[in-house]
Amino acid sequence: MQNFTFLNPVKIMFGKGVVAKLGPEAAKAGKKALFVYGGGSIKKNGVYDAITAALAKEGVAVVEHSGVKPNPVLSHVRGGIKKARESNCDLIVAVGGGSVIDEAKAIAAGAKYGGDVWDFFCGKAKIGEALPLFTALTLPATGSEMNSGCVVTNEETAQKFSAQGVPLFPRVSALDPETTLTLPRAQVANGAVDAIAHIIEGYFTTTDADAAVTDELVHALARSVIASTERILKDPSDYSARASMMWSATLALNGLATCGYGGMTFINHAIEHSLSALYDIAHGAGLAIVMPAWFKHHLETAGPARLQKFGAAVFGTKTAEETIKAFEDFFRKAGAPVRLSEAGIPAADIPRIAENAMGLIRLWGMKHEQPEIEKILEKAK
Amino acid sequence: MQNFTFLNPVKIMFGKGVVAKLGPEAAKAGKKALFVYGGGSIKKNGVYDAITAALAKEGVAVVEHSGVKPNPVLSHVRGGIKKARESNCDLIVAVGGGSVIDEAKAIAAGAKYGGDVWDFFCGKAKIGEALPLFTALTLPATGSEMNSGCVVTNEETAQKFSAQGVPLFPRVSALDPETTLTLPRAQVANGAVDAIAHIIEGYFTTTDADAAVTDELVHALARSVIASTERILKDPSDYSARASMMWSATLALNGLATCGYGGMTFINHAIEHSLSALYDIAHGAGLAIVMPAWFKHHLETAGPARLQKFGAAVFGTKTAEETIKAFEDFFRKAGAPVRLSEAGIPAADIPRIAENAMGLIRLWGMKHEQPEIEKILEKAK
Repeated sequence: MQNFTFLNPVKIMFGKGVVAKLGPEAAKAGKKALFVYGGGSIKKNGVYDAITAALAKEGVAVVEHSGVKPNPVLSHVRGGIKKARESNCDLIVAVGGGSVIDEAKAIAAGAKYGGDVWDFFCGKAKIGEALPLFTALTLPATGSEMNSGCVVTNEETAQKFSAQGVPLFPRVSALDPETTLTLPRAQVANGAVDAIAHIIEGYFTTTDADAAVTDELVHALARSVIASTERILKDPSDYSARASMMWSATLALNGLATCGYGGMTFINHAIEHSLSALYDIAHGAGLAIVMPAWFKHHLETAGPARLQKFGAAVFGTKTAEETIKAFEDFFRKAGAPVRLSEAGIPAADIPRIAENAMGLIRLWGMKHEQPEIEKILEKAK
Repeated sequence: MQNFTFLNPVKIMFGKGVVAKLGPEAAKAGKKALFVYGGGSIKKNGVYDAITAALAKEGVAVVEHSGVKPNPVLSHVRGGIKKARESNCDLIVAVGGGSVIDEAKAIAAGAKYGGDVWDFFCGKAKIGEALPLFTALTLPATGSEMNSGCVVTNEETAQKFSAQGVPLFPRVSALDPETTLTLPRAQVANGAVDAIAHIIEGYFTTTDADAAVTDELVHALARSVIASTERILKDPSDYSARASMMWSATLALNGLATCGYGGMTFINHAIEHSLSALYDIAHGAGLAIVMPAWFKHHLETAGPARLQKFGAAVFGTKTAEETIKAFEDFFRKAGAPVRLSEAGIPAADIPRIAENAMGLIRLWGMKHEQPEIEKILEKAK
């Protein structure tokens, strides 16, 4: 087990009706909130009304910044920063999925920074402060509600990069599983794949295979995501399954699933970011394509031990090959594509995808070269 | 899955050499520390030297308050409060096991309170503020290093009661598994039993058996504690096993293992507190006696479902009876007593033990009467 630091000060309010409790929490931080949300699904499921009523009750004024896209884009982030500054917002309330929360984080940091917010994403500046952030999550997937990272796409350069910093931890996040009962099936699938991707990165890339307690937690979260997803696919109104899925996806990227895994990387994410930057496909869909290919590469280069251990604990499989097939079967069953062709991405684009991925691989300091990434992507044809 | 709130702002620094890093962390909070520790084992294992050097380097002065007992007592807490006030300490550094950290928490709250610190333990006052607390853990067991509770025994009234409050969360806790390599075998056993006790209370007393993700985490932590303990018993110098044990025991009572378990109680702890208040036995030893008896009672009153589920996931057992036996076997193997007689406690004392336990049971608002507690204790003869 390698040395690690764990810090996660986010207050989680979990369960039925918790969205309304964000009002008093937000009022502790300020009087005027930039209210960040997406395409308007929160107006259909009642969350928009709940949050605006809760803020109004506490005397918190609201400036709306809606229209956040899945794979949130830099131009819209910049628009939010301008609005937050012009309106003198002293806090941010983000309501939606990981894209909304990620954009809100970028705005929170950008509003307090003299330079251009993209500096944080390309490593030119560190995040020293940010507007206080409060979130209500409506889509379990990215874990952004309980971590200090965010991902934004620069449309001009086709770079999907990330920024991170302690000031980006939300102060409070409200997680009401009832708000997820009406999610479209594709979003259930993408969320499940994203959570699995967060769980497996550290486990399979660690240089220390004797962080036994973290291995156990990883197995537990993976089992929970898979079992919850299967229950949700069978009965979308199953509250307990929605609740387990929601909390599992949060725990998958709040820092717990990588404690002691020194030397780990986020290689699957680095490759996937290239796919969604170039083709604007859902992050979960991209990951379902990348992971099986990367597992095959991992088996060739690192041997079968980790795949066997994971498979035995999570899928009941015996060999590494069976474990890879079990991942693929789960992704397919959830409804995600598992090959480039299934997402309409031509194999001829592989060099271009790999070249784009190298941007993030270099920025994150990983030791991979473009031919290796191309080789991995060849397995995803 | 029941509604819950999760908040845990403790910064954990984990691994080899992290004790020295407490110096700069403590220096952020003040200039004079009350340095709380126990019987002096930290002078043998190098931790005393490491922490005093680290504090001196940062210009943090130290006022020593040593001699904390296992099952820390109120009179010694009051002595620490007096010392902290007289010396104008502005922070506390606690180095040792859960007893040391618990006493340090009580001092931290008491030093900022006008009345008597026992008020917090018998429900007469709430903890509004406390001196900032920094800890270095040397005995994995209680989880106190990453939670906001503490337990103190009032020797005059033979009451072992607890207090809790957000100001009691340590700011930073340093967990170096190397400091546990020289622990006596009895403390390894007590720590393992205590961690198991923390893991099982919510799981077996919840009124909601469909918090599936938390069930998975409980299984994972229990497996990790048991496997780590068995490795440590075989090879006390096994660093990875010590590390997994240390992090497992911390996670066992940092709030994660009870998320969504509405209606849960700490009944095994309530009964055990009576044993250690009356006989001053180790908390872990007391729990190893209480738990098997309570499991038998649980089987009679609640049925076999939870014992079967836990046993299948953790021990590979099939029936509830086999699961109870597997718990007992593990406690025995670790070296803990599993019957009152094995700890030299006469069966004739059962009414007195049960009467004492009722104090905490009433204070914690549990729905149990003395005859039921006596019935449980009869199974521990």
